[in-house]
Amino acid sequence: MATHTRRTLGHCGSRTRAVTFATDTSDQASTVETTLTRLLPPADTAPARLHEAMRYAVLGGGKRIRARLVYAAGRTLGLPGERLESVAAAVEFIHAYSLIHDDLPAMDDDELRRGRPTAHLAFDEATAILAGDALQTLAFGVIINDPRLKDQPGIRAALIATLAHACGSRGMIGGQVLDMTSEGRDIGLEELEHVHTLKTGALLRASVIMAADHRPDLATEQRDALDLFARKIGLAFQVRDDVLDIESDTATLGKTQGADIAHEKATYPALLGLDAARDYAERLYVEALDALAPFGERAEPLRAIAAEIVRRDH
Amino acid sequence: MATHTRRTLGHCGSRTRAVTFATDTSDQASTVETTLTRLLPPADTAPARLHEAMRYAVLGGGKRIRARLVYAAGRTLGLPGERLESVAAAVEFIHAYSLIHDDLPAMDDDELRRGRPTAHLAFDEATAILAGDALQTLAFGVIINDPRLKDQPGIRAALIATLAHACGSRGMIGGQVLDMTSEGRDIGLEELEHVHTLKTGALLRASVIMAADHRPDLATEQRDALDLFARKIGLAFQVRDDVLDIESDTATLGKTQGADIAHEKATYPALLGLDAARDYAERLYVEALDALAPFGERAEPLRAIAAEIVRRDH
Repeated sequence: MATHTRRTLGHCGSRTRAVTFATDTSDQASTVETTLTRLLPPADTAPARLHEAMRYAVLGGGKRIRARLVYAAGRTLGLPGERLESVAAAVEFIHAYSLIHDDLPAMDDDELRRGRPTAHLAFDEATAILAGDALQTLAFGVIINDPRLKDQPGIRAALIATLAHACGSRGMIGGQVLDMTSEGRDIGLEELEHVHTLKTGALLRASVIMAADHRPDLATEQRDALDLFARKIGLAFQVRDDVLDIESDTATLGKTQGADIAHEKATYPALLGLDAARDYAERLYVEALDALAPFGERAEPLRAIAAEIVRRDH
Repeated sequence: MATHTRRTLGHCGSRTRAVTFATDTSDQASTVETTLTRLLPPADTAPARLHEAMRYAVLGGGKRIRARLVYAAGRTLGLPGERLESVAAAVEFIHAYSLIHDDLPAMDDDELRRGRPTAHLAFDEATAILAGDALQTLAFGVIINDPRLKDQPGIRAALIATLAHACGSRGMIGGQVLDMTSEGRDIGLEELEHVHTLKTGALLRASVIMAADHRPDLATEQRDALDLFARKIGLAFQVRDDVLDIESDTATLGKTQGADIAHEKATYPALLGLDAARDYAERLYVEALDALAPFGERAEPLRAIAAEIVRRDH
């Protein structure tokens, strides 16, 4: 993690600042783990097997890009980190639930996730399905029951609306279905982008937008700028993912390398070629940074994560 | 439906009132269908296959007990029906999602639901899993985006909190896991009640409580009375379900008769004997009616549904 961040921040300027950010990012990552651990039901409360499966799926590592996007957007907007805890946890719960269901035998039938057996292998298929279901519910639950937002039902309602929009049939789940139906079929760049704008983009975007939801006073232009950043970096994330599926290895990825090709999935490298796909990720990254211009220095945390997203090796 | 309702209301008194209630209940049922049809994504919008599966699972009949509990509790509390539409739809979306996932090969592996092929047979397993996922999201979405509650974020937040509590790992999904782990195992009455308080009881209870959530001014005693009613009738519902699994037939049930025995599930008839299970349902029904005493005549709609729940033949 530290290596990445330093590589990332070499890009931004002086060594001193790079070190500062490396520390910040790593602090943030440990805050995320602490929060997730606390907001998940304890493994020893009934039904223990379900709670164990939920914890297994969520706490098994992961880059926490979504939670860290929440915090980074929050810092850009001057929000205290503790106000964002439930939202940061919620996006990771949704992400973990989507991975559990994606990995099921009826879907991608994957055996490896974050370097460990997928949930349906570590437990069983029924428990995995239900753990995913309960994690989705928990995502809505932690936001709505956040004691720090007790007196702000308007903000809680806005957050739930953003999350429900991002996860639903016209968001993440819609993207998952479109991704499935595109397997083994020739699709063009426009359709591919549409799939990924929904499948991975919607939740990444929501991670940024939910930070903005905490600032109902935010000017429309600033909200739109964050939205544009989130859309660009969400797409860049997926292009990078497709590139990694080819150029990385299973041990580094923590999931099966070459799975896209095996599933005959349409990918950016397949459509554009590997080099052009790398260039495309870079272009999206630059456009994402451009979108942040109105925030000046305050957007450094978002810039750091953006750099990490397009340069990560897993 | 009309026949049921009349049988139900013979119990309550005069023929005139029976006819009135029969009409009301049937109006309510058609209102529910209209609302569900309207709040589901259109089948011709992308991803069409997902939306078709969601509509197939929700609109394939069903008694709409949960939606009608919402409306009946709402009338008891003097709330206009149109304010309850999104909540009535939400509980049916959650119910439909839970049925899709329960019926999956990895769970109960059922072939028949509401007299038609289960969703994973009518579509495919992956689509069924994702349609369930999207229906859960939609339940939260329709409440939070209800235009009639636009200016009442406090009520929307309360509704989401009630629903999330009812559906989560300590509610419906927890009950489903406990039910699975109890298969083929000797469990006592207390454990069986705990399973069903969660598995079916939590959502039935939420259907009543969410009507009360629309009345933040409601006295605690009235809220508690509704809660007690909902708990009693939720349990009565499950006892009746267990009895029907034995005494009814597949055509009437619209799902496979004898499935509990085939799955070696613990049931009330298995623990108590068939007659004692029938008596128990009746006792819970009487206790449910007792709980409604503070509401006098206003609770007639709830009494009618309670009677239907314990006397239904499917």
